[in-house]
Amino acid sequence: MTKKEAFLDRRQRGNDAVLRHGDLTIRRFLALDGDAYREGAIPAKHKELLGLVASAVLRCDDCIAYHILRAREEGATRDEVTEALSVALVVGGSILIPHLREAFELLDEL
Amino acid sequence: MTKKEAFLDRRQRGNDAVLRHGDLTIRRFLALDGDAYREGAIPAKHKELLGLVASAVLRCDDCIAYHILRAREEGATRDEVTEALSVALVVGGSILIPHLREAFELLDEL
Amino acid sequence: MTKKEAFLDRRQRGNDAVLRHGDLTIRRFLALDGDAYREGAIPAKHKELLGLVASAVLRCDDCIAYHILRAREEGATRDEVTEALSVALVVGGSILIPHLREAFELLDEL
Amino acid sequence: MTKKEAFLDRRQRGNDAVLRHGDLTIRRFLALDGDAYREGAIPAKHKELLGLVASAVLRCDDCIAYHILRAREEGATRDEVTEALSVALVVGGSILIPHLREAFELLDEL
Amino acid sequence: MTKKEAFLDRRQRGNDAVLRHGDLTIRRFLALDGDAYREGAIPAKHKELLGLVASAVLRCDDCIAYHILRAREEGATRDEVTEALSVALVVGGSILIPHLREAFELLDEL
Amino acid sequence: MTKKEAFLDRRQRGNDAVLRHGDLTIRRFLALDGDAYREGAIPAKHKELLGLVASAVLRCDDCIAYHILRAREEGATRDEVTEALSVALVVGGSILIPHLREAFELLDEL
Repeated sequence: MTKKEAFLDRRQRGNDAVLRHGDLTIRRFLALDGDAYREGAIPAKHKELLGLVASAVLRCDDCIAYHILRAREEGATRDEVTEALSVALVVGGSILIPHLREAFELLDEL
Repeated sequence: MTKKEAFLDRRQRGNDAVLRHGDLTIRRFLALDGDAYREGAIPAKHKELLGLVASAVLRCDDCIAYHILRAREEGATRDEVTEALSVALVVGGSILIPHLREAFELLDEL
Repeated sequence: MTKKEAFLDRRQRGNDAVLRHGDLTIRRFLALDGDAYREGAIPAKHKELLGLVASAVLRCDDCIAYHILRAREEGATRDEVTEALSVALVVGGSILIPHLREAFELLDEL
Repeated sequence: MTKKEAFLDRRQRGNDAVLRHGDLTIRRFLALDGDAYREGAIPAKHKELLGLVASAVLRCDDCIAYHILRAREEGATRDEVTEALSVALVVGGSILIPHLREAFELLDEL
Repeated sequence: MTKKEAFLDRRQRGNDAVLRHGDLTIRRFLALDGDAYREGAIPAKHKELLGLVASAVLRCDDCIAYHILRAREEGATRDEVTEALSVALVVGGSILIPHLREAFELLDEL
Repeated sequence: MTKKEAFLDRRQRGNDAVLRHGDLTIRRFLALDGDAYREGAIPAKHKELLGLVASAVLRCDDCIAYHILRAREEGATRDEVTEALSVALVVGGSILIPHLREAFELLDEL
């Protein structure tokens, strides 16, 4: 199974469990989370890159994977994804390196 | 193996290694960690929910699993566990979502 | 000015600026944040203690001050606030000590 | 003194001390930090917004102030700054609210 | 007032409040915190530098100030303090820069 | 496969992907990261212990594994590694325990 497939599979099973048990606060939060990345003053592609950098400095592999996939869908090039990750690395430091490894292995697959 | 079994197995092996090598500071810390959740002005159930929220906002899957199991043993209902996780989600943001997925999949098993 | 007055004053000025400029996502988030602490399966007092522990381990002085004030309003005793902070200290470590200093100085004032 | 002036003054004094004492590793890091925001595949304005979101989710007031000032210099509108902060709020949660207060008070001044 | 005096004053007032209100868990934690830096397999000077790097990457100004003062008391040179901070900067990233400014301004005073 | 082998294998594959795609900023960061641990005012062994404590309080298992291996290569004893981890535990709190389990299981293997 590719990294992308493993992520999507894990995400689907998890989201099913969250939706089965989540209360109103959790459901409203998830709706708000979806809306935050809608095209606005900032184009959708750049919003996904914002989400990617936030995920990278907070060091969440599944969040990084999600925003790489979404950024690519919105038309971000490999170079844009790489540059966003380089900003994250400088802000967040060498502690991000293991997450960059995962990110670039996923980017390799796409 | 269920998520609960995998966690308990991983925890047991790890704790054995910690106790084999840990120095006096580490052993005293572990004793203090146990004492902090004892019934006091706050009932044991609510202390476990405090530990659960702390673990969730700090995004530690094994710590979340431990406090869900302990909270349930102390009589916390599913709704109480879910509400505690919803407070954590609002405080800690969408970066917690992958950890919520794990938490609700475990809650599903119990 | 007491620590409580300084906090409330700073919070008021800041909230005015947030509401003047915040977009729909920010306004909806703030509404959700308010709702998360409503009495539910977990009593309001214990929800404020959950918010306090989350704020303490994430080391946000203004958030700690807010939840100490709210927990006291909801009937939490000094001992309950102290016990919640002791759980936070064990989970989050000595890096929390400067925030505990602020928290106990505020508790002194109340 | 305005928030902007206080920040610039504090930053200048601090940077003087860093440059007086910093070793080669620190000086090279600072050079790299400057280069990371140069126009590339991603325009400079959007790189500053990436830096802003990274700073916001990592909750560093001075870093937020710096990237708001730089983003405005690179042509970011108030709405773009606000939207970037709204993405940060959803990713990073309510623990960011005190930092948003500071950010919007600064934005008020500009 | 110098930065050192301001820190020591703030610390004293805070510690008084912590000791006045802290429960047994908090008092035992504080004792353990003191013991962790005792000379052992690692000399006291290097333990203080470990505490300094931990404080720097976790971005706690008062903790950084404390360990700079203690490291200097245990015989650490300015160059050793600077090198420890440069390791912290590379591990923790540019988000540490405002804390380095504070650290080097304090080092300037000593 | 031992924990050490699994780590080295994962690291190798990841580093290949990083070097294949990384831009100039990323490459310069990696070079700087290597240099930061060179013998200087602080001996290389103690620099690795600084890197270990930074990695532990920031809770990065692969970074912890790397610095344990490097510290041992530079002559750190088991007791020195354990003491460094005990400082990290007190600074960073019980949320580090799952990472200590991993660290001591690796130390067991060496």
